Amino acid sequence: MTTPLDNHRRRLDTIDARLLELLRERNELASEVLETKIAAGLPIFAPEREQAKVASFRQAAAEQGLDPEWAEDFLRMVMSSSRAQQSRAKFPQCPGGARTVLIVGGGGKLGQCYGRAFTASGHTVRVLEPKDWDRATELATGADAVIVAVPIRVTAEVIARVAPFLEPGTVLADFTSHKAGPLKAMLKAHPGPVLGLHPMHGPDVANLSKQLVIACPGRQPEASQWLLDQFELWGLRLQELAPGKHDRIMHQVQGLRHFVALLHGSFMRASNLAPADILALSSPIYRAELMMTGRIFAQNAELYADIVFANNERRTLLLDFLQHHEHLAALVRDDDKAGFIREFEAIGEFFGEFAEQARTESGYLIHRLADRFV
Amino acid sequence: MTTPLDNHRRRLDTIDARLLELLRERNELASEVLETKIAAGLPIFAPEREQAKVASFRQAAAEQGLDPEWAEDFLRMVMSSSRAQQSRAKFPQCPGGARTVLIVGGGGKLGQCYGRAFTASGHTVRVLEPKDWDRATELATGADAVIVAVPIRVTAEVIARVAPFLEPGTVLADFTSHKAGPLKAMLKAHPGPVLGLHPMHGPDVANLSKQLVIACPGRQPEASQWLLDQFELWGLRLQELAPGKHDRIMHQVQGLRHFVALLHGSFMRASNLAPADILALSSPIYRAELMMTGRIFAQNAELYADIVFANNERRTLLLDFLQHHEHLAALVRDDDKAGFIREFEAIGEFFGEFAEQARTESGYLIHRLADRFV
Repeated sequence: MTTPLDNHRRRLDTIDARLLELLRERNELASEVLETKIAAGLPIFAPEREQAKVASFRQAAAEQGLDPEWAEDFLRMVMSSSRAQQSRAKFPQCPGGARTVLIVGGGGKLGQCYGRAFTASGHTVRVLEPKDWDRATELATGADAVIVAVPIRVTAEVIARVAPFLEPGTVLADFTSHKAGPLKAMLKAHPGPVLGLHPMHGPDVANLSKQLVIACPGRQPEASQWLLDQFELWGLRLQELAPGKHDRIMHQVQGLRHFVALLHGSFMRASNLAPADILALSSPIYRAELMMTGRIFAQNAELYADIVFANNERRTLLLDFLQHHEHLAALVRDDDKAGFIREFEAIGEFFGEFAEQARTESGYLIHRLADRFV
Repeated sequence: MTTPLDNHRRRLDTIDARLLELLRERNELASEVLETKIAAGLPIFAPEREQAKVASFRQAAAEQGLDPEWAEDFLRMVMSSSRAQQSRAKFPQCPGGARTVLIVGGGGKLGQCYGRAFTASGHTVRVLEPKDWDRATELATGADAVIVAVPIRVTAEVIARVAPFLEPGTVLADFTSHKAGPLKAMLKAHPGPVLGLHPMHGPDVANLSKQLVIACPGRQPEASQWLLDQFELWGLRLQELAPGKHDRIMHQVQGLRHFVALLHGSFMRASNLAPADILALSSPIYRAELMMTGRIFAQNAELYADIVFANNERRTLLLDFLQHHEHLAALVRDDDKAGFIREFEAIGEFFGEFAEQARTESGYLIHRLADRFV
C-alpha cells in the first residue's frame, strides 16, 4: 500500500548520497585551500572572505526558493566542518622565523593545547612542570617567551619563582583568568617585556580558529608583537582591554555565573527534583539552560571553587548579589506584581536593543536544539 | 599571486551551487511525501522512520570519510527545513471526520496558532472573545470541544462562565500552564468530558510538529480521544502527567527560571554593566545564557509577572529559594572553599549521568553558537 512513499524515499536516499559525495569533495577542496594559505603564510580565518561567501550563498539559496536564514546556517556548518580539519593540518608561522617558547605548566590541558599549536607552527616548545625546577635555568635560557599557564591560586607564586631565570629580553606572559594581579606580579618580577593574556575558551576546542583571547599589554609591546601575530595566524580573535575592566566583567561572567549554577543545582537537589523529571517537561530553551548548568557538575569541583572564590573583590560581588536577591524577593513576599513589572520594564530599557538581538539569537538556538534533541 | 586560491574558490562556488540545487530538489520531494501522508491520513512526524534515516545517513557519511556527528546535524537541519514547509500545507484530519471546536480566547496568539491548525485539518473553528459573551449560546451549541485559552489569571473565572453554555457531551479542555487548579474548576463546572492540556511551546513556532503537549485526563477520556489523535497527527508529542506533579515541576521550570532571569538582568543593571560590554568578553556558552536572559526583556512584563506570581505555592517556592541562597552565600562569606567543593560534589552525585549528558549536549550547542555568532 505504501508503494508511492517507498518510491519517494528511494529518491530521497539517492539525493542524500549525492549530497554526501559533494560534501566530501568540498572538504577536500577546502583542505587544499588551507594548505595553500599556510604555504603562503596567510591567516587561516579571513572574516571578510567568510562574510562575502555567506552573502552570495544566501542570495543563491533565495534564487532556488530556499530560506536564506536556513541556507546561512547550512553554509556555516559546512565551513565549520572544513575548519575542524585544520586541527590535523600544519599551522602557519609568524614572520621572523621559529621561536623558542617555555610553557610553565605546559603539562596542563590549556598548556598542552597551545604547546601543540606552537609545535605545529614550527616553534620549539619547552615545558616546566613542578618537578622541573632544578632545570629551570636550562629551560629558560634562550626562550623568546615564557608563558605561565598554571592554576590561578599559584599564579603569583609561580611568576615570582620563574622570573629570576629569564633573560632580560624574554617576553613574560600569563594565561590566567584574572589580569590585574598577575600583570602586577609580572611587571614587578621581570624588568623585560610583559604581556597578560586570557584565552577565553576551554582546552578541548577542536582548534583555535575563531576563539577569543584577551590581551592586556604590560611593558614593551613591540617585543611581544610576534606572539600576537602568531595568535592571529592561528585564527584567534584578539581583544585588547584594561586589566581592571577585564576583571570587573569576569567577576560576573565567571564568578557570578558559576555561583548561580551551584545555586540552581543545589536547589534542585534540595527540592529532590531530578533532572530527568524536569527534562521531560522542558521547552527547548529551558532544556538548554539545564544542560548548561548540568555540564558544570561533570567537571572538577576544585577548578570551580578557584573560580568562585578567586579573590575578595569577587566574593564581595557575590555577597552584593545576595543583598540584591533579598531586595527583589521582597516583591514576591509582598505579592507586589506592580513592582515586578516596574523592575522588568527598567531592565528592558537598560538592555535596549540588546533584548531584541537576544530574542533573535536565542530563537535560532531554540530551533537548532529542537532539531537535534527532541 | 592568488591565482591558485581563486581557482579553488571558483570550484567551491560550483560545488555550493550544486548543493543548493540538490537541497531544492530534496525539499520538493519531501513536500510530495508530506502530501501523500496527508492524503493517506498518516502522522506527519514518524519518529522511528526519522531514527532509521539518521542511522543510515551517519553510516553513509562515515563511508565518505565525514564525521557522523556532523552529518547527523546536517541531516536534521535539512529535515527541519522540509518540516517548516508543512506550515504552508494542509494537515491530516483525525478519524471520525470534521469536528466543531470553540476556542475561548481564540483571538490570542496561542488560540490563533491552534485555530489555524484545526482549520487546516478541515475542522470548523469558532472563537469566543470577551466581546462575544452575548453570543455564547450560539457559539457553544454543537461544539464537539470547547478549549479555554485565556490568560492564567482569568482562567478559573472564564471556565465557570463558559461551562453552563456547553452541551453535556462537549469536551471541555484548557490550555493553561497550571493544571491542578483549572482541572478542578473544569470538573466542578462541567459534568461531561474534561481534559487539561498544556502546550509547552510558544505561539510563534513555525509548525506544531515535534512540539510537546502535556495532557492531564479529567473525566471520560474516551470522549476526548479524537482531540489527542488530532494532536498526534499534527506531529505533536503528547505526555500524560498527574496535575500535581506537572505543577510542581512548572514552579521551577517557569516560576523560578523567570525570577532568576529578573535577578540576573536587574543585578547587571544595578552594577551598570551593559550587555554589550559583557558580550565582548563572553565565551559561546555565557553568550547563550545572556541571550536567554535577554530575550525575556523583549517581551511582555505582565505576562512574566503572571508567570512568577502565579499562586501562593509558587511564591512560597521562590521564598524558599532565597533561604537557600542565604545558606549557600554563607560559604562565600566564610571563604569556605571546602564547603563549596562538598556541595558541588553532592550535586554532581545527585545529577548522576545527567551531568555527562549535559556536557555532551551543551558542547554541541557551543559549537553551533560559535559557528553562527562569532
